[in-house]
Amino acid sequence: MSNCLVAQSGGPSSVINATVAGVVKANQLNPVYGTVYGGLNGIEGILQGNLVDLTHMSEMENRILRQTPSSALGSCRYKLKRENVADFEKLIEVMEKFDIETLFYTGGNDSMDTVAALSEYAKANNIQGRRFVGCPKTVDNDLMHTDHCPGFASAAKFIATTAMQTWLDVNVYTRQEVFVLETMGRDAGWLAASSCLSGIVDLVILPEVVFDKEIFLAEVKKCIDRNNKCYVVVSEGVKYADGTYIAAGEAKNDGFGHAILGGAGNALKNLILEAGVSERCKVQDLSTAQRCHASEQSLVDVEESFKLGMSAHMRSMDKAFTGKMVGVKRIEGDKYDVEFFAIEANKVANFVKGFPKEWMLENYTGITQEAYDYLRPLIEGQPVIIYENGIPAYVKPYYMK
Amino acid sequence: MSNCLVAQSGGPSSVINATVAGVVKANQLNPVYGTVYGGLNGIEGILQGNLVDLTHMSEMENRILRQTPSSALGSCRYKLKRENVADFEKLIEVMEKFDIETLFYTGGNDSMDTVAALSEYAKANNIQGRRFVGCPKTVDNDLMHTDHCPGFASAAKFIATTAMQTWLDVNVYTRQEVFVLETMGRDAGWLAASSCLSGIVDLVILPEVVFDKEIFLAEVKKCIDRNNKCYVVVSEGVKYADGTYIAAGEAKNDGFGHAILGGAGNALKNLILEAGVSERCKVQDLSTAQRCHASEQSLVDVEESFKLGMSAHMRSMDKAFTGKMVGVKRIEGDKYDVEFFAIEANKVANFVKGFPKEWMLENYTGITQEAYDYLRPLIEGQPVIIYENGIPAYVKPYYMK
Repeated sequence: MSNCLVAQSGGPSSVINATVAGVVKANQLNPVYGTVYGGLNGIEGILQGNLVDLTHMSEMENRILRQTPSSALGSCRYKLKRENVADFEKLIEVMEKFDIETLFYTGGNDSMDTVAALSEYAKANNIQGRRFVGCPKTVDNDLMHTDHCPGFASAAKFIATTAMQTWLDVNVYTRQEVFVLETMGRDAGWLAASSCLSGIVDLVILPEVVFDKEIFLAEVKKCIDRNNKCYVVVSEGVKYADGTYIAAGEAKNDGFGHAILGGAGNALKNLILEAGVSERCKVQDLSTAQRCHASEQSLVDVEESFKLGMSAHMRSMDKAFTGKMVGVKRIEGDKYDVEFFAIEANKVANFVKGFPKEWMLENYTGITQEAYDYLRPLIEGQPVIIYENGIPAYVKPYYMK
Repeated sequence: MSNCLVAQSGGPSSVINATVAGVVKANQLNPVYGTVYGGLNGIEGILQGNLVDLTHMSEMENRILRQTPSSALGSCRYKLKRENVADFEKLIEVMEKFDIETLFYTGGNDSMDTVAALSEYAKANNIQGRRFVGCPKTVDNDLMHTDHCPGFASAAKFIATTAMQTWLDVNVYTRQEVFVLETMGRDAGWLAASSCLSGIVDLVILPEVVFDKEIFLAEVKKCIDRNNKCYVVVSEGVKYADGTYIAAGEAKNDGFGHAILGGAGNALKNLILEAGVSERCKVQDLSTAQRCHASEQSLVDVEESFKLGMSAHMRSMDKAFTGKMVGVKRIEGDKYDVEFFAIEANKVANFVKGFPKEWMLENYTGITQEAYDYLRPLIEGQPVIIYENGIPAYVKPYYMK
């Protein structure tokens, strides 16, 4: 009986571990593989043979793993390049050494490219019995073909909740004030758009459209004239017409000259104060917390992530199953439900699915009903979180054991 | 039968509304007052006669009010000055007009000073039947005499949880990295110190001790040498020996020249990168979210806040009860429990209770067991939060109705 290997890549999310938990659980229910290995720090660690044995994970550990944010197996930013044949040879060597038939790889665009590249390499070199399966994961929700990505909804839920809470905070004083909430989203505005689920956002600025300073300031002024307040949400990746990030001006001031994103909120604050549109402006950058605040996971999200891992494992019983990503398909109907499906990983790799322009209202004033209908079911439900000493119980990262 | 009035002041918290809910509920259980008014936007709104009727709040509204963050009655930064007699006269006038016998005022130092000033004024001018009761509220936990302040523990729980989650995030990559988490705390380090409840903090920098750049950088270097990572928590109010905020350098760079706090994290990042102690450094400023992230209230906190409101109402049946703050006293014993007590508001006003220096380990390396024993029980337990459409259900602010 051969073995399988599950590993994680790219930026972590609040539910990425649930996919790993799903693979492990599926193999306990139906032991297709003798050992379920976890690869530490993605491809980078696998190339060094850094594996742990997850096969006999207890039900309680599995349960807690599902509520543990960030990649419990560690991650990497290492990208397998097709011209770097030595890496491919080395990886196949590790798989042979541990008798690994199937590698389940969770991640975003780059990870799906890795899955595609590895399966192409195996095919081209007539390597039998080594298969590669992708599991989508990205808070950015920017993968093609899948209805949405596990990890997105929990970040969206945290963002919408925090938008509502900070809106309540900024409104307690009668004074004039703009509040700017900055979210992640380098190329896609899904996270920023999800803030609208709070029902309190006045203006939302997404990277899919060129930023127009004059329109923005005019809209802020309208809000201030009406309510003396304006609640703005901005995606970190918003750009001017010339392609520069609106955050770039801020980055220049940090004294290091790096084009670091994360200053979009402060950039808008400066525009607002310089233009005199509001007396006060406060910025909150949700930064790292938005992708790991798992104490408020969406139940829909964590369950789908878990089931996707199970589905990937179960599908891999088919010896021809390789070079695929398992995606999520929304079933049409009144009640939200999904099914899982498989698609060629190379159809997903290196593409970005942006927030549809037809789902944006003009002049940054919000999103359409269609967008709400898409987003709302994803953030539904709260899993019961197990706590220890007042904070959520988490699995100790396997790369630290 | 006379009436009572409850109002809120200062910066909001995640459980400030639970005190209001407690006053309202106590009066439903024992209708000492005919009407329970809510004063909008603190003293500022009361002076204008902006009151709402809270007397017959339904149990469900009361329940949801307790989980609603920020001041549902609105807040103000208006400080009653003793020399401004017209304000005192106007306030008594409003109380006479609405036949208000008792004003319950929730807030921090300034609010307790308001309570003290009003009761002194009434006494000095022989004004009968107008009484003033303070209820402590501040995420900063810096009020004297009370063991702790409602609002602190929920912020502490959010900070400790977020520290744990972001630590898991920063550790997924093998690269060298420092993570700096910035918390509120202008004069007191309680919030920053509470991050240690996560068990993962390497260095914690509080405003109670002068910041020593050399010691700090040496400690960061030790962590980096040991683990290639360092997790730092810093309070916004940390200062150099000459009294300048470490954040001040950042504020100068913002182009407006205001001495705005909130840049302590970035200041440390700059020190670290300039000194070459780490290749990378990431900053998360928890900003507004830390005081209003009520979806993770501490159960202990929200229940104490509610009971404190009830206790204040019940004590006010004593016609001599005025100029007092109701505080929280920890009962000695193995199991955490509290009782409520009353103290002269003027003993609380205008003092700041810092985090005890004897509870800090040297060189920013953490807090003592005594500090853990004090903090840990406060963040215990999670209330059942009622959700609507995937985000917590909140009461619409009364100042918007």
